Amino acid sequence: MKVLVIGGDGYCGWATALHLSNKGYEVGILDSLVRRHWDAKLGVDTLTPITPIQQRLERWKDLTGKSIDLFVGDITNYDFLSKTLHGFEPEAIVHFGEQRSAPYSMIDREHAVFTQVNNVVGTLNILYAIKEDFPDCHLVKLGTMGEYGTPNIDIEEGYITIEHNGRKDTLPYPKQPGSFYHLSKVHDSHNIHFACKIWGIRATDLNQGVVYGVLTDETGMDEMLINRLDYDGVFGTALNRFCIQAAIAHPLTVYGTGGQTRAFLDIRDTVRCVELAIANPADSGKFRVFNQFTEQFSVGDLALMVKKAGNAMGLNVEIQNLENPRVELEEHYFNPKNTNLLDLGLQPQYLSDSLLDSLLNFATKYKDRVDNKQILPKVSWRRS
Amino acid sequence: MKVLVIGGDGYCGWATALHLSNKGYEVGILDSLVRRHWDAKLGVDTLTPITPIQQRLERWKDLTGKSIDLFVGDITNYDFLSKTLHGFEPEAIVHFGEQRSAPYSMIDREHAVFTQVNNVVGTLNILYAIKEDFPDCHLVKLGTMGEYGTPNIDIEEGYITIEHNGRKDTLPYPKQPGSFYHLSKVHDSHNIHFACKIWGIRATDLNQGVVYGVLTDETGMDEMLINRLDYDGVFGTALNRFCIQAAIAHPLTVYGTGGQTRAFLDIRDTVRCVELAIANPADSGKFRVFNQFTEQFSVGDLALMVKKAGNAMGLNVEIQNLENPRVELEEHYFNPKNTNLLDLGLQPQYLSDSLLDSLLNFATKYKDRVDNKQILPKVSWRRS
Repeated sequence: MKVLVIGGDGYCGWATALHLSNKGYEVGILDSLVRRHWDAKLGVDTLTPITPIQQRLERWKDLTGKSIDLFVGDITNYDFLSKTLHGFEPEAIVHFGEQRSAPYSMIDREHAVFTQVNNVVGTLNILYAIKEDFPDCHLVKLGTMGEYGTPNIDIEEGYITIEHNGRKDTLPYPKQPGSFYHLSKVHDSHNIHFACKIWGIRATDLNQGVVYGVLTDETGMDEMLINRLDYDGVFGTALNRFCIQAAIAHPLTVYGTGGQTRAFLDIRDTVRCVELAIANPADSGKFRVFNQFTEQFSVGDLALMVKKAGNAMGLNVEIQNLENPRVELEEHYFNPKNTNLLDLGLQPQYLSDSLLDSLLNFATKYKDRVDNKQILPKVSWRRS
Repeated sequence: MKVLVIGGDGYCGWATALHLSNKGYEVGILDSLVRRHWDAKLGVDTLTPITPIQQRLERWKDLTGKSIDLFVGDITNYDFLSKTLHGFEPEAIVHFGEQRSAPYSMIDREHAVFTQVNNVVGTLNILYAIKEDFPDCHLVKLGTMGEYGTPNIDIEEGYITIEHNGRKDTLPYPKQPGSFYHLSKVHDSHNIHFACKIWGIRATDLNQGVVYGVLTDETGMDEMLINRLDYDGVFGTALNRFCIQAAIAHPLTVYGTGGQTRAFLDIRDTVRCVELAIANPADSGKFRVFNQFTEQFSVGDLALMVKKAGNAMGLNVEIQNLENPRVELEEHYFNPKNTNLLDLGLQPQYLSDSLLDSLLNFATKYKDRVDNKQILPKVSWRRS
């Protein structure tokens, strides 16, 4: 089965592409490589020294004998996208190819507009390309749990059955996203839902939680296959960022009280969830939504877990509650469902002491590459 | 009070600008005039011979002594928008300045992408301009009843209180829009809601029904103030289009069975609703939603009403059920609420025989300007 991974040079995309290749899928990677360019422009870098995509793929072939086709270009360029699809003829498209940082989208007007146009147009182009030439191709699109926000009722998977004034209907779950980035994903979800309805496209929206960890079976095979690991204030996410902070004796930066609860998963589960979605495609015309996470933690509790694990390794770990740069509830109800992927057979890798140890050791190994100036959040959600 | 009407050269915008000017508001019009250009490119034209905006405004000044400032440019150009706002210093912005046709957005990929980028970026720019320099300015944004689709439960005004698994919350009403245009309005609504929350902006989203009629107190004052009246397959909407078809002995084009029920209002109510929203601004940080319509009709019933009124005037009126170019339910529950504007004092102009007579006479007066080739719908929602 031929699978095109759009955004296959990124953190989730790279791990997914190798996993699928390892599992026998015929994999292509489409990526504009612009994320590396954004890092350069912001003056930030991954903790881990990632090699150019071409070298990564050569090494993968040397190690496994498996080829991954590479298509370098931007999906907002429809001609490029269309030519790539005609060349590769995918049966499934995994779409990670979006600007994925909330703080990046909140830097200023230009970054907000860029994020929404880039993400919405890229996805619209994919929908049109599928409709025009590959109507049976299954779109597996990365959404985010952040689309839901923190409603005071249970979060269902994409839809909710509402009884109202004596009548009943199952409707798209109401969305309350918390950044212009998260909004772009909500826009995508609405657009994809509509395209499924009018054109009979088959799509799965994976509303993913915060991903942690860095090693998968495949990226751990060789130093040249190493995955990126972000710790900076723009691209770094909780847990990964905390472990790196612990490794360099920087206080763990908890925004506000840390009472914010979020959904999390190990990157080894990310790649399995995508594989499950591909192996069990949505029906034609169906917009299917899976909440892709395995556990939930408050940010404050995560920091405490990292502190404890760090202390056990002899690291001196402090926790610092910063003024929250975001506008979000710091105490709230949070009960999201995630049964769809479990029903397909997902066996979660829950967060463990050994994972924390491994991540802390990994961070320690590369700690000399850390630029301390890039750790604190500089982007504020509020009017200055 | 200074009010900037963005899109003030259009059907609703022109009527609104004159109404507000007549009521003593200090009015500015910002418009790119691109709608006239789209007409030219599609080879369509308004039934009524509209004069250039500059002549319209001169005539308005001659008749009433009231000046309306004109700013010609595109709000997707932030520098232009920002300069205009600094020059005019509005206390309220009425935003009609979007691509507003569902069929136009469904022509092809380019038109879908254009519609979403144009509408979303224009509104994002307005939000940033308000946040940066006019934080107290009230944004009155034109949405559409089409954002809701046709759910099987009552349609509330923007929000719905949901009881679920023993808990309760009031959340944004789930949206099921039916075209890439309608989707762009849903994207706008989500973006505005977020901007209100994080920046304390005050905004009112007017989810407007299908507007009919052409005369208002102001546009009826003089031939040079005449409003546009669209009848073509791209920009023409039900009722207005039916009356023009009746006037030229073209069968009334009902899409599918005509069982689709929609919300409607007279353009004389459009201008009053906008005035009510401006005169009663939203609180700071509040994203307020009004459903702006006065009655609901099925498309088939409307056609019968026009046939009856036309027959009474001696016109021979046929009804033709065309294959529906859209993907939509033709029989469905539809019970939208509209109490917010009534509570503010709206006294509706319900659809009457005299309005139909007036509209049919108006259409008859200009019937020699009709291009019969532009009447039938040419844009299909489905895969070809």
